[in-house]
Amino acid sequence: TFIRGMQTVTLIPGDGIGPEISSAVMKIFEAAKAPIQWEERNVTAIQGPGGKWMIPPDAKESMDRNKIGLKGPLKTPIAAGHPSMNLLLRKTFDLYANVRPCVSIEGYKTPYTDVNLVTIRENTEGEYSGIEHVIVDGVVQSIKLITEQASERIADYAFEYARNNQRASVIAVHKANIMRMSDGLFLRKCREAAEKHKDVKFTEMYLDTVCLNMVQDPTQFDVLVMPNLYGDILSDLCAGLIGGLGVTPSGNIGANGVAIFESVHGTAPDIAGKDMANPTALLLSAVMMLRHMGLHGHAKNIETACFDTIRDKKVLTKDLGGNSKCSEFTDAICQRVRDLE
Amino acid sequence: TFIRGMQTVTLIPGDGIGPEISSAVMKIFEAAKAPIQWEERNVTAIQGPGGKWMIPPDAKESMDRNKIGLKGPLKTPIAAGHPSMNLLLRKTFDLYANVRPCVSIEGYKTPYTDVNLVTIRENTEGEYSGIEHVIVDGVVQSIKLITEQASERIADYAFEYARNNQRASVIAVHKANIMRMSDGLFLRKCREAAEKHKDVKFTEMYLDTVCLNMVQDPTQFDVLVMPNLYGDILSDLCAGLIGGLGVTPSGNIGANGVAIFESVHGTAPDIAGKDMANPTALLLSAVMMLRHMGLHGHAKNIETACFDTIRDKKVLTKDLGGNSKCSEFTDAICQRVRDLE
Ligand SMILES: CC(C)[C@H](C(=O)O)[C@@H](O)C(=O)O
Ligand SMILES: CC(C)[C@H](C(=O)O)[C@@H](O)C(=O)O
Repeated sequence: TFIRGMQTVTLIPGDGIGPEISSAVMKIFEAAKAPIQWEERNVTAIQGPGGKWMIPPDAKESMDRNKIGLKGPLKTPIAAGHPSMNLLLRKTFDLYANVRPCVSIEGYKTPYTDVNLVTIRENTEGEYSGIEHVIVDGVVQSIKLITEQASERIADYAFEYARNNQRASVIAVHKANIMRMSDGLFLRKCREAAEKHKDVKFTEMYLDTVCLNMVQDPTQFDVLVMPNLYGDILSDLCAGLIGGLGVTPSGNIGANGVAIFESVHGTAPDIAGKDMANPTALLLSAVMMLRHMGLHGHAKNIETACFDTIRDKKVLTKDLGGNSKCSEFTDAICQRVRDLE
Repeated sequence: TFIRGMQTVTLIPGDGIGPEISSAVMKIFEAAKAPIQWEERNVTAIQGPGGKWMIPPDAKESMDRNKIGLKGPLKTPIAAGHPSMNLLLRKTFDLYANVRPCVSIEGYKTPYTDVNLVTIRENTEGEYSGIEHVIVDGVVQSIKLITEQASERIADYAFEYARNNQRASVIAVHKANIMRMSDGLFLRKCREAAEKHKDVKFTEMYLDTVCLNMVQDPTQFDVLVMPNLYGDILSDLCAGLIGGLGVTPSGNIGANGVAIFESVHGTAPDIAGKDMANPTALLLSAVMMLRHMGLHGHAKNIETACFDTIRDKKVLTKDLGGNSKCSEFTDAICQRVRDLE
């Protein structure tokens, strides 16, 4: 059922605390009068012809049609050969850019203040190629695959992201002193993208140096772009700087406008169903989604309501240092978002 | 000239500030009456028959004979094809374990206190194999090589290090969820080593999770063991937590008692020869060396004199937040070490 002026988003509530935090987000979106209608889908992989694991067809069809998805945490079933659900989604929809803004949250104390950076991770190849061999007994090789095409695509994305989001600088993170050909190719594509975007400052840094400087003074960083594994590491490191995966949004961007926004924390089975979960990471991911869809006003209001609630410190979930339930925290945000209308 | 009761160590002063900080260490060792005599050597690579880059024979011979080396920072000449001096040394002497204790220094403020951990990095293979190919135009592969032999050796080393240094736990850091065969082999060898060392607690953690938890609370970590690239990253990250490479010691351990201890900061050409350098990293590396040689009393005295001087805050080099020259800082440590005799 199509409602005029509404955009449809595929909602993948996920496992564990997923359904609770998804409900929280829907409630806040309603309070904010965000013009979004949700189409709920389950993505738990099924085995297709030949035993190949795949996303259920109705979920695939929904994403193909809506192009935009919001996703809670997924547990990966431990059936033999079952792929990581996250990897399967990235692959199925060719989500080549993982984007994680890490911004210090006022009132939520960590050893750092004024962090305001974005990690952009190549999400399809590199160390995640899945190609491995036993050469001889006791000698194993894993192949890191870097292509010109994927490197160019992510490098261009990083510079366009910087330009569209009023960010002044892009740093390419690499180990081309060691992996001269693969990281060298990645780096070359970043240099070429920099040539095309002279309005954005470009720098190159070794991954180890970035890690060292990051924990000493993260405020010096802006946009960082890097191959798959380095992004896996650095995005988690940066999330740690601002309070962890419970407050860090994430977006996976594909070609032709396809994108899935997700909280990257776990399913927290120990507190699932107990109204104790913190919906912040999923909510901020949903805010990223609104911006991606051009709904900047609604994004701003929801974000403000969320940050004000945290700064106010009166109604916080346990992991944020409070005593409130998920539903109470959600209601506090709804209240504020209504006041902002 | 052999002096009774003295042990000879190969000293590689290195480039830039290397000679100054090496002199500082020698002076402090003399004040501490450490039973060490130094044999100075230059290791800048030369081209042997067939154009192969190698360590000069007299330096190689000195290390082979003395087995123990202390090394300042080296610049890598930019001649085409010239290898990284660090990699060449690791290779020449098969220095398979890079050991970096990261311990918070009282009085030197960073966002963290009470850090007390050790990273142990496999130093010979993995992502540093140097094997790379162009598959087809625009498609490059780098090979990560993991062997049973090298994994077993580093895993055993980590547990023996833990036991010999009264450390309670070893964590194997990996991405075996992604690189199932290579990191899987590494992990299996760690598990086997854990079986042999039941007195030391063993845990396995994903690299991304370690990075996240590290910046949130590094005090939870003890000994960490990992493949080459992960160690490159994590050792620098951890150095950042306690104040950077200027205060972090490092040791490279090989087979048959061979070891080279080194400061891992750069040559700092901008301040070279100006009596402004901070010798702490090289001095603490020399303290590690003394412990490796069983000279625990001298190690303790020099370390105490160094830490007391820093805690006292009266005589500090510029990078440590003071106004003193390298020679003044060195003299202050000498004074204290004499008082401890
Ligand atoms: C779950 C795992 C496969 C994944 C990864 O390694 O990419 C995760 O760490 C992430 O960052 O999304
Ligand atoms: C200089 C470079 C080759 C080296 C490395 O990448 O291993 C350095 O970062 C280190 O950690 O010693």
